[in-house]
Amino acid sequence: MNSLFQNLALLRTTLKQNNIDAYIIPVSDPHLGENIADHWHVIAWLTGFDGSAATVIITDSFAGLWTDSRYFIQAEKQLEGSGFKHMRPGPVPEESYIDWLIGNTGEGSRIAFDGRTLSISHYRKLETRLVSKKVILKTDCDLISEIWTNRPPLPSTPAFDHPVEFSGKERSEKIIQVREQMRNQKINYHLLTSVDDIMWLLNIRGSDVPYTPLLLSFAIIGEEQILLFTGENKIPPKMAQEFDSLDIVILPYEEVAAGLSSIPEGSSLLISPRTTSSALYFSIPESVKIFEDTSIPSRMKAVKNRAEIENIGKVMVRDGIALTKFFYWIESNFGQIPMTELFLIGRLLKFRVENEDFLGPSFAPIIAFNQHAALPHYSAKPETDSVIEENGILLVDSGGQYYGGTTDITRTISIGTPSLTQKTDFTLVLKGHINLALAKFPFGTRGYQLDMLARKHLWEQGLNYGHGTGHGVGYCLNVHEGPQNISPSGNKTIIEAGMLLSNEPALYREGEYGIRTENLILSYEDEETDFGQFLRFDTVSLCYIEKSLIDKSLLEQKEIDWLNSYHTEVYEKICPYLTEEERMWLKEKTLEL
Amino acid sequence: MNSLFQNLALLRTTLKQNNIDAYIIPVSDPHLGENIADHWHVIAWLTGFDGSAATVIITDSFAGLWTDSRYFIQAEKQLEGSGFKHMRPGPVPEESYIDWLIGNTGEGSRIAFDGRTLSISHYRKLETRLVSKKVILKTDCDLISEIWTNRPPLPSTPAFDHPVEFSGKERSEKIIQVREQMRNQKINYHLLTSVDDIMWLLNIRGSDVPYTPLLLSFAIIGEEQILLFTGENKIPPKMAQEFDSLDIVILPYEEVAAGLSSIPEGSSLLISPRTTSSALYFSIPESVKIFEDTSIPSRMKAVKNRAEIENIGKVMVRDGIALTKFFYWIESNFGQIPMTELFLIGRLLKFRVENEDFLGPSFAPIIAFNQHAALPHYSAKPETDSVIEENGILLVDSGGQYYGGTTDITRTISIGTPSLTQKTDFTLVLKGHINLALAKFPFGTRGYQLDMLARKHLWEQGLNYGHGTGHGVGYCLNVHEGPQNISPSGNKTIIEAGMLLSNEPALYREGEYGIRTENLILSYEDEETDFGQFLRFDTVSLCYIEKSLIDKSLLEQKEIDWLNSYHTEVYEKICPYLTEEERMWLKEKTLEL
Repeated sequence: MNSLFQNLALLRTTLKQNNIDAYIIPVSDPHLGENIADHWHVIAWLTGFDGSAATVIITDSFAGLWTDSRYFIQAEKQLEGSGFKHMRPGPVPEESYIDWLIGNTGEGSRIAFDGRTLSISHYRKLETRLVSKKVILKTDCDLISEIWTNRPPLPSTPAFDHPVEFSGKERSEKIIQVREQMRNQKINYHLLTSVDDIMWLLNIRGSDVPYTPLLLSFAIIGEEQILLFTGENKIPPKMAQEFDSLDIVILPYEEVAAGLSSIPEGSSLLISPRTTSSALYFSIPESVKIFEDTSIPSRMKAVKNRAEIENIGKVMVRDGIALTKFFYWIESNFGQIPMTELFLIGRLLKFRVENEDFLGPSFAPIIAFNQHAALPHYSAKPETDSVIEENGILLVDSGGQYYGGTTDITRTISIGTPSLTQKTDFTLVLKGHINLALAKFPFGTRGYQLDMLARKHLWEQGLNYGHGTGHGVGYCLNVHEGPQNISPSGNKTIIEAGMLLSNEPALYREGEYGIRTENLILSYEDEETDFGQFLRFDTVSLCYIEKSLIDKSLLEQKEIDWLNSYHTEVYEKICPYLTEEERMWLKEKTLEL
Repeated sequence: MNSLFQNLALLRTTLKQNNIDAYIIPVSDPHLGENIADHWHVIAWLTGFDGSAATVIITDSFAGLWTDSRYFIQAEKQLEGSGFKHMRPGPVPEESYIDWLIGNTGEGSRIAFDGRTLSISHYRKLETRLVSKKVILKTDCDLISEIWTNRPPLPSTPAFDHPVEFSGKERSEKIIQVREQMRNQKINYHLLTSVDDIMWLLNIRGSDVPYTPLLLSFAIIGEEQILLFTGENKIPPKMAQEFDSLDIVILPYEEVAAGLSSIPEGSSLLISPRTTSSALYFSIPESVKIFEDTSIPSRMKAVKNRAEIENIGKVMVRDGIALTKFFYWIESNFGQIPMTELFLIGRLLKFRVENEDFLGPSFAPIIAFNQHAALPHYSAKPETDSVIEENGILLVDSGGQYYGGTTDITRTISIGTPSLTQKTDFTLVLKGHINLALAKFPFGTRGYQLDMLARKHLWEQGLNYGHGTGHGVGYCLNVHEGPQNISPSGNKTIIEAGMLLSNEPALYREGEYGIRTENLILSYEDEETDFGQFLRFDTVSLCYIEKSLIDKSLLEQKEIDWLNSYHTEVYEKICPYLTEEERMWLKEKTLEL
């Protein structure tokens, strides 16, 4: 019996002892964000599967794991011999495990989970869908801590300052502005559970989770005080002193529930239901009037301020230099140095590490060759690592965290001579990219209205891609950070001036290759007319777009003009930082089409 | 004291007698549709205002009427001397009267209305927003019937058959299909309150309200029986016999609440909350499990069947002939016969009346000259009627009800020589119209994704229009009939093959002129590729588009191609029904651009 089997057997014994019929485990932590610390990777410890999205259910006779299509192959492999069955998702992937519960648990069953790891909005879905089964939902059920003996501790990295030259606004000023909005909305207390909200508000950062500079913490903003719940000794003395002067009280991380319980009767409290755990939710006294909405910091930080916008411009130059040197290196060494996807990930990181104020990658880079590029979320592993061969399509999607911003950029290049279809596909994707980049739209427009600009030319040829066109991007925070996006899904957030988004139309030919061209775009105010205030996007990412993949005959003049002017900007901004060889090469790459 | 004042005084006395602090009256009837019978025009009787949308509030010291911007001028005028104040709407127009209630009623006030005229979903809004005022909402309060002495009776028109050659499906078959969906959704009973749903289901029509061939009725579909609640003697004997054979039981109109009360304990009932009155809702026994969703007939009838599609094609030819003859008549008589907006409305009707199977106009036609055309919903009245003068823009938006379909078409023509700006505006609107007409999109696309196709070229010039681009259209039923539409508002209905929609981008220059070009478009299945099933639109309305208003230099080749091919189709389909003079004139109007 291997250790995974032992863990499962142990958990089943605990289930029985606690009189529980089914136990639910998500990949999640008490902040319900995208990246989590090892301490919370219960599923990896229990099943061997280490993907970033999954749900596990264990009963006395069943153990299964649901994940989405990007992890099918990985899950099949990693679950081998674990005792866990890989379950295929249903029509609503994130509710597939609920479907299973509906079909496989009897009336009155006791279903349990650790309420710290499921949001209250998710809990409500579970409750609504299981209501006819008359099950008992136990939300306070941590069965893992006692059996996971060598569990990694909670991260203990210290906070560091995010200086005002980068944040553009003192923490004291941000606090005043958040409180002002609280007063306008008649809110006495505001619970912050999303760590990025707290980082932004207090101008601090940490290193507690991969890819995003977060310091695990909760906060409750009151009218006078801010209660900051975080690990012991995580706030350095000098910072603690300044916090003290702003009436920011540092409390132990575990005491946030106690903090909520002590909110005075009759107060109003604003929470964000998708990032508030059900455990925390249930610790709010009944006498407190709860308002549910996107958090105030989350809406405020989506609109970048002037200093942030200036810094983003600088960071884009640095990030562009790294990418340019990387692609130059590939072209000039191809055929001499053997290259694989994983090897290139390391190479690219080396170039980024050379940049000033670089904190690390902003997500696990995707370097994918041919059919791997057809998987939108492919992540190279030793067992899948492909050799980059003579003819093919190489997709590079990567980004960095800098004090002055977060980057995310994708380029697709051709190794050898591309086929006609590849050129057509690349050009159609590029047309979508350019048309979104050129968009002009009145204030009040939502992302879902713009999404089709990037798809129109693909649709006309019976082509499409299965993901949104653009996600919001944080500032030295999450690479995926809302509330804004550009997607067909119906998100009603209005695109305001100062919002940063990705522009990443794509095309995936299963088993063959994938193409994606991604830049970050920043909205700004254009003219005001009798018909309202109009906005436009500024494309801020800086890296050449591979011309050998373009079929010029498919481009309209305004699209060619956009590309030429973009290439001129790329060359001018990047060339001062290149060697003579690199410069000549980039000149060629950015020559007029 | 005039009669309006007397009515108001009488109502105030009744308020006092009934111990009511504020009374709400909407323009509405128990079916909550767009057009209502005179019996329900309480506001017109009480205030003199006869617009199609308004809400009135009466207290012992206040009497006010809220309406939207299209009725401002009319309301000011008609309310003069009525004792009612014209109130300007707030940010959410349909909730402005609630804002007033919040600001102007004390805690514990008794607020009343006739629960038959407010939907349950609207009632919930009222309740939620007034909760902090701890008011008492009385929903069963008809104070009007007893004081409105000469109130018009409920309409008593008889039902007539909508033969299967038009409906394309026997009523028996439709009933089977609706019951099948009910079973799939585990629904025992389905309440139909929207009269169009009942008309469609039973293949009947009536003449109870203006513009839409409806027979006022409710229905409850059970697993074996259908209870049809309608006025006495409205179902002719032969129809009644056939209904009897299908287990359709005809009951008095007023007994629908009793019918609901008698639904057996523990049954499930499907209702549509936006068209179910709060009065009816509260008559549902507590033991009945209520499901709320769009009604099944409303979803089914949105997808037109083969026979309906064929008939729509025929109806479009007839409607196109009437319009062609109308525009020819204007051009050949202009300067000789004096023309006004109202006069032209009469003229246009004369041409439509000549058509086979014509039942009447599908809405109050908009014929609007110059600055009147800048008001999207202008309706000519004797006091506003404009003479059509030498130079200007004339907008004609009209439609008809036919056994074989409902039409809605807008053309904008120029009297005299148009200005350059007018040509540019017209051409930009036309570009939007054509780009939506040419759209190709994968199954799963919502109307809100397509909306921008019609706006893009206007936005690029800092222009826009303030309404949706397209509404759903019924079949010998409502000219505005969802659930589908094409609008920025975020309606999640997927555009399926067989849906009929309008395509009506526009531009309004306040105080100057307005431009709108509207055709109906019908979606159909195009190719299926590796990326899914794609759909396209077929433009079904048939009338030339005024070329003298087009600046050809602004059109792309594919747009010119669309216009030329559309004009060829218009000419070929319409010309056999024209006189020689008309034919030659249309040939000219549809010559290649």
